[in-house]
Amino acid sequence: MKIGNISEMQPLEIDGGNILKRVLIGPRDGAPNFVMRLFTLKPGASTPYHTHPWEHEVFVVDGELEVVKKDGRIKVSKGSFVFVEPNEEHQFHNFTDKEASFICVIPKEGGE
Amino acid sequence: MKIGNISEMQPLEIDGGNILKRVLIGPRDGAPNFVMRLFTLKPGASTPYHTHPWEHEVFVVDGELEVVKKDGRIKVSKGSFVFVEPNEEHQFHNFTDKEASFICVIPKEGGE
Repeated sequence: MKIGNISEMQPLEIDGGNILKRVLIGPRDGAPNFVMRLFTLKPGASTPYHTHPWEHEVFVVDGELEVVKKDGRIKVSKGSFVFVEPNEEHQFHNFTDKEASFICVIPKEGGE
Repeated sequence: MKIGNISEMQPLEIDGGNILKRVLIGPRDGAPNFVMRLFTLKPGASTPYHTHPWEHEVFVVDGELEVVKKDGRIKVSKGSFVFVEPNEEHQFHNFTDKEASFICVIPKEGGE
């Protein structure tokens, strides 16, 4: 068993620190199938609008975000979940003035 | 893409309503590899002390819990994550007077 807390972890800074990434559970812990990450988006930050062959399973832990998809934008907030299908275009955008965080689980084929 | 919020879902009641289970994303949504569930434990509630061949990847969303394992108990709270290995004995126990909720992701071989 591995137990930790995000408060004890040094995040990886992406996009000049606008996005913080924490790999909570993954292959390095012996996880055989999938990887759990936590992303924190600072106010105004966006992940790239992009696509990849693996799926996302997302749960919003704090704050409010827009999910950008091919046919529009949808607001999500704490308690929302998002299934991004393989090869589906997507982006997460924090349009608020507070941090927003979400869990994002991917199969190990997607890396960390 | 599937987007929802737990506030719009009717949970499955387990153990006389002491445990609420919501399957957020799974094979019914076309998810190819793994299943994301949210469990809410009422004050005093426990999941069974048990084991199974598939792993758990857990993230505590709200409240405080004890993780019971073979060699002791560890307190976890919002922001904690737990990797339960395949075939490892485990239990989640809400020892507080408030609800506690956690995300639990399993491979699809484990059912929903």
